[in-house]
Amino acid sequence: MAFGWIDDQAELRRLAGLVRTLRPRPADSPLLDLASNDYLGLAHHPEVVEGAAVAARTWGGGSTGSRLVTGTTELHAQLERELAEFTGFEAALVFSSGYAANLAAVTTLAPHGSLIVSDAGNHASLIDGCRLARGATQVVGHADPDGVRKALRTHDGPAVVVSDSVFSVDGDAAPVGALAEASREFGAGLLLDDAHGLGVLGEGGRGAPHAAGLAGAEDVVVTVTLSKSLGSQGGAVLGPARVIDHLVNAARTFIFDTGLAPAAAGAALAALTLLRREPERAARARAVASELYTRFTAAGLEAVRPDAAVVSVRAPSPEAAVQWAADCRTAGLAVGCFRPPSVPDGISRLRLTARADLSGAEIERAVRVIGETRP
Amino acid sequence: MAFGWIDDQAELRRLAGLVRTLRPRPADSPLLDLASNDYLGLAHHPEVVEGAAVAARTWGGGSTGSRLVTGTTELHAQLERELAEFTGFEAALVFSSGYAANLAAVTTLAPHGSLIVSDAGNHASLIDGCRLARGATQVVGHADPDGVRKALRTHDGPAVVVSDSVFSVDGDAAPVGALAEASREFGAGLLLDDAHGLGVLGEGGRGAPHAAGLAGAEDVVVTVTLSKSLGSQGGAVLGPARVIDHLVNAARTFIFDTGLAPAAAGAALAALTLLRREPERAARARAVASELYTRFTAAGLEAVRPDAAVVSVRAPSPEAAVQWAADCRTAGLAVGCFRPPSVPDGISRLRLTARADLSGAEIERAVRVIGETRP
Repeated sequence: MAFGWIDDQAELRRLAGLVRTLRPRPADSPLLDLASNDYLGLAHHPEVVEGAAVAARTWGGGSTGSRLVTGTTELHAQLERELAEFTGFEAALVFSSGYAANLAAVTTLAPHGSLIVSDAGNHASLIDGCRLARGATQVVGHADPDGVRKALRTHDGPAVVVSDSVFSVDGDAAPVGALAEASREFGAGLLLDDAHGLGVLGEGGRGAPHAAGLAGAEDVVVTVTLSKSLGSQGGAVLGPARVIDHLVNAARTFIFDTGLAPAAAGAALAALTLLRREPERAARARAVASELYTRFTAAGLEAVRPDAAVVSVRAPSPEAAVQWAADCRTAGLAVGCFRPPSVPDGISRLRLTARADLSGAEIERAVRVIGETRP
Repeated sequence: MAFGWIDDQAELRRLAGLVRTLRPRPADSPLLDLASNDYLGLAHHPEVVEGAAVAARTWGGGSTGSRLVTGTTELHAQLERELAEFTGFEAALVFSSGYAANLAAVTTLAPHGSLIVSDAGNHASLIDGCRLARGATQVVGHADPDGVRKALRTHDGPAVVVSDSVFSVDGDAAPVGALAEASREFGAGLLLDDAHGLGVLGEGGRGAPHAAGLAGAEDVVVTVTLSKSLGSQGGAVLGPARVIDHLVNAARTFIFDTGLAPAAAGAALAALTLLRREPERAARARAVASELYTRFTAAGLEAVRPDAAVVSVRAPSPEAAVQWAADCRTAGLAVGCFRPPSVPDGISRLRLTARADLSGAEIERAVRVIGETRP
């Protein structure tokens, strides 16, 4: 049978206890959410929701085509201007997802004959970008500027250093400044995925590159998502105008994809406006993360000191992690649960989101439930 | 300078007259649209727009996470049920874009040691899927079932034949039934991208696989977009439940991407409801395409007989195609213009969309403008 081999793989997954299933949530879920990437609690904010609704009414349910044909509206252009201005870069280009933005950035910045130096902990979309790029990839250790130097030393020609600015699973920050130094020593470009930094790090949430003084640098390109702190969907590439023009002309996930839906653009724009008006949201998310970490370690749990709004707590085994997350759920708390093969280091953990809009009582409840259900 | 090589590429593009630029459109564009992929004219339909607005209000501006964490809502589940039912497949899985759906389908159906047989005219997203897949790819001639047989004969082990059902640029249909026969002779699976077939071909727009009697077949998997006939954004994979379960567990663009925004899911659901209630929209799009083709050829233009809702008209050169499209625009008509490197065969053409909601007067006007501006 054509797809018979799929059953063998499914059986192996079942035996390993690694079957993934979808669990559709209702609109009025009673669970306390510490699992999403809605870091600033904006996905349900009335202004963000209205931004989506008004944009759909004004611009339609979809963008109707590639950004190069009918899929670019004045709404997309406005979003790109405001994203660039907010983060401090010259220009921005919006994609239908952060995944698509990362594929675009890596493939177009690493032509034939170039070298990509990629952090071992990078997100799947950056790794797929490396696989698709014409340049050669050298994977270096996690958060290792000297490893980057060693890799760059082996190569003559264009090179780009690629790293998440905040890593998704453990929530630890890359040594962004040191990576920029290492790249510059060799004339290499630096590509940072700030998906988990935008809205959380830097002045008023301007992101990790802004905090490191790299905003607007001519050798730095940044990708972000609109689907985390901005409570919407989509992704963007930020950088010098010449790099953005290059992407318009060369990025396959830009040229051959339908433009972002107007509702998503409208929601992201409304979230950006909110973030400018209420810059304290970013600091609040960091403070919540710090409090969760302090409380967990005081309770004897093994947690990673958070650099942004993700708090990672170690579990003794994949099975224990799954049971822990299930017990939290039973007690009314939604938490993320990461285990192999999603985690490259093989360590299973709970992943908790320190939302800026968590109340003191909600933090209290989360800490209590996680302590009471620990394996 | 880090990205200095980009300027050289930009200069080469400029010299070749191949610079692409974004042209943001206003909400109230006065242009008659024959350029979008809004085949059924649903992107601005009040029910589709309200579907988006209500979904945003009920479910938020974004889905807040991976479909495997917090990004699956009951709205996504409902959309998947209705997509599967409408197209006649057992199950469906929704992605943030058709591009992501194609990457997912190709990579997960072509494991290490397998063979992918890929039509030379396939969409960029299918080609990128082949590049990312662990299996080996053999490219065969365009719409060539015997070429497919020849390729499959060389291989022992899992194999999948991959083809657009309707090709984007020329609007010609693949020999879907013959491809299924060829695949079955060798026990290979068949993966069809029905992005341009859904809503246009088959009974009431159920798509090319349905029209060919392949809906629900255990060896057939289909990808579709929500961003063309359904006037929204996103993509989906349709197929046997075991294949869909496999994708949930293995597809990187599913696991590591944020779920589709609720507004996009709501708009697509509303469009599906409309399509069931007004099944004549599909036939109307085909009739408009047929009329445009007849009128163009009668006027001595070289057009490709349309199998769906795309009408392709040849231009003598890339420069002439660009000038022709610009002259149409000046005369109030938006048309697509395809030229190298977007077209693998090197032939430049205008690409026209036969929207189901074009009036007789609008068709008249389009035919007149294209005739008057011909090179």
